[in-house]
Amino acid sequence: MSTVGKVIKCKAAVCWAAGEDLKLEDIEVAPPRAHEVRIHILYTGICHTDEYTRSGKDPEGVFPVILGHEGGGIVESVGEGVTNVQVGDHVIPLYTAECRECKFCKSGKTNLCSSVRATQGKGLMPDSTSRFSKDGQPIHHFMGTSTFSQYTVVADVSVVAVDKKAPLEKVCLLGCGITTAWGAVTKQLPDIKASNVAVFGCGAIGLGVISTSQLVNCKRIIAVDTNPNKEAWAKKFGATEFVNPLKLPEGKKIQDYLVDITDGGLDYTFDCTGNVNVMRAALEACHKGWGVSTIIGVAAAGQEISTRPFQLVTGRVWRGTAFGGVKGRTEIPGLVEDYLQGKIKIDEYVTHHQKLNTIMAGFHEMHSGDCIRCVIDMRD
Amino acid sequence: MSTVGKVIKCKAAVCWAAGEDLKLEDIEVAPPRAHEVRIHILYTGICHTDEYTRSGKDPEGVFPVILGHEGGGIVESVGEGVTNVQVGDHVIPLYTAECRECKFCKSGKTNLCSSVRATQGKGLMPDSTSRFSKDGQPIHHFMGTSTFSQYTVVADVSVVAVDKKAPLEKVCLLGCGITTAWGAVTKQLPDIKASNVAVFGCGAIGLGVISTSQLVNCKRIIAVDTNPNKEAWAKKFGATEFVNPLKLPEGKKIQDYLVDITDGGLDYTFDCTGNVNVMRAALEACHKGWGVSTIIGVAAAGQEISTRPFQLVTGRVWRGTAFGGVKGRTEIPGLVEDYLQGKIKIDEYVTHHQKLNTIMAGFHEMHSGDCIRCVIDMRD
Repeated sequence: MSTVGKVIKCKAAVCWAAGEDLKLEDIEVAPPRAHEVRIHILYTGICHTDEYTRSGKDPEGVFPVILGHEGGGIVESVGEGVTNVQVGDHVIPLYTAECRECKFCKSGKTNLCSSVRATQGKGLMPDSTSRFSKDGQPIHHFMGTSTFSQYTVVADVSVVAVDKKAPLEKVCLLGCGITTAWGAVTKQLPDIKASNVAVFGCGAIGLGVISTSQLVNCKRIIAVDTNPNKEAWAKKFGATEFVNPLKLPEGKKIQDYLVDITDGGLDYTFDCTGNVNVMRAALEACHKGWGVSTIIGVAAAGQEISTRPFQLVTGRVWRGTAFGGVKGRTEIPGLVEDYLQGKIKIDEYVTHHQKLNTIMAGFHEMHSGDCIRCVIDMRD
Repeated sequence: MSTVGKVIKCKAAVCWAAGEDLKLEDIEVAPPRAHEVRIHILYTGICHTDEYTRSGKDPEGVFPVILGHEGGGIVESVGEGVTNVQVGDHVIPLYTAECRECKFCKSGKTNLCSSVRATQGKGLMPDSTSRFSKDGQPIHHFMGTSTFSQYTVVADVSVVAVDKKAPLEKVCLLGCGITTAWGAVTKQLPDIKASNVAVFGCGAIGLGVISTSQLVNCKRIIAVDTNPNKEAWAKKFGATEFVNPLKLPEGKKIQDYLVDITDGGLDYTFDCTGNVNVMRAALEACHKGWGVSTIIGVAAAGQEISTRPFQLVTGRVWRGTAFGGVKGRTEIPGLVEDYLQGKIKIDEYVTHHQKLNTIMAGFHEMHSGDCIRCVIDMRD
């Protein structure tokens, strides 16, 4: 019995208010309107950004909301005018849209499409309404994706079809962390090739940066983390060295230590922590004259980065990246092929599994140093 | 009567202690040692960096010292092993050396040669001694140049010969400000071509950035200065618009105003003030996704720049430049030719003149908004 054009009742993990645990609910998902796509979500990862908003620390968080932005699923139906995906396609929702028509998309300089940004930030679809409700009460969307629901609706510019041969329980992770890390490195090609890099923070993003650095033949890949258990992880993903900032000689700053052991500093560094003090250390660990430091981690609201301007005047560059600079619709299909051909790792990130009804356990696991990624099986 | 190999007695403006006025003195200048060049300085500019050290605010300042780093002169004699200049050459001393052999020079990525850096920072020649003295008391060098002396000695890697057809009273200014501004813009070619730029601060550096932006066909060139008298100057050098941050609607920040009037921000901005708050404004005035902000101004010791990391994560780049990224020995001869062919301005910067014995008047004039550059005639 086709669900096309009808409201679908399904299960979703709803966050009713800032700081509350997600609660499994039976919700209603309205049909997609023009230029919208309804997706049957099969798998989703959990990312720190979900927890950031759940916790209430995100001042722009709106509630109630269905979180989740690292999902994989199958197109159930499409609204009028949708041409880029069709029913039955295996797809990955994109929290960074790609309309190919806005000033940003056309610039050729950035992946930060502006087409749905304003409404996405308010937890709404582009027409400023929601497709989610429970007993008539609207529930907000999140990052234009809301993958913690068995069915979700996204803008057509916010979804990409991928090869059906790829297991969705793996490639769902391309919806955020792994792609971000891959882009953060590869968008700096060709210069980053054969250079020395340091990666601050060995969560999923950090490991992805390490892995991609190995892929592009970086020479020294120094992993930095305060959790000693991360050393084995970092080396498994390609780090040539591991430094624990808590184990340096007393009073030695991590940036000074790294400058010492690298004859002047790193060519490229990456902050994968979201900690503004680490961001500073990552910049200052760069080599004078040419070192480039990239901020990937998302800092808490109101926090600021600082350094002496001399650090920049003497040739270091401070930059950042969102979703790794990747244009999802254009580039993710290629990443899926790379995965299928064994060129990029995905399986290795998956350390934990949960079902939708135990999703909060996945959130708790994320805080443990042993969890890289927990994948939620959304099926009943 | 040749002075080669002999101590030369001449006049110099000596700063005996932090915060004191320069004092005209008869000093002794020892002959150049191996790989050193003794130069008869005919003209020199005064730059804010001279004043910064004179004032005592520079924690690395050493005294007594002969300041000055924007000079032009004629080679009087050379030490053993000097091959890049010869007696009689018209030359410009370089505070940023170019040895062509160190890791930095060979990198192809930076102009920050390390060959004489350590001793230069201590106010000494590369063999850790000084060539300047008065009645047996050594006087320190400054920035490897010390152009406030009628004769100075510099390392051979710190000097470049230029076309004798060029008037030294003009091209001496290529020793710092004009070259810095030129490089800060042209090193960002080809991307900066036809873009929109904002220039914060309309001193010599700022005007140079404006002029070079015009040279590379930037579209909008917005000059920003709190001194209303700078509007005419900025427009004379090529600014298409002038904004006075003190005249904005109450409570409006300059960065927000600039973002408003440029449909999202500037492609490139330049801080030419040395004020860390202005550096932040310059970054935040950049367009999301691709704006690049370059710090040229030198901040006071201990001051720090800050911003929200979100500024970088959403695609802005924060960088800086020293001497505009220019390799002096390689590039200044070409700049002199450009000047002789009318392609770049120099004459227009010279607003004031002094003699060596009235050099302090030049320092005072520099603080007035009407002085762009004061050139000192060093001849008796």
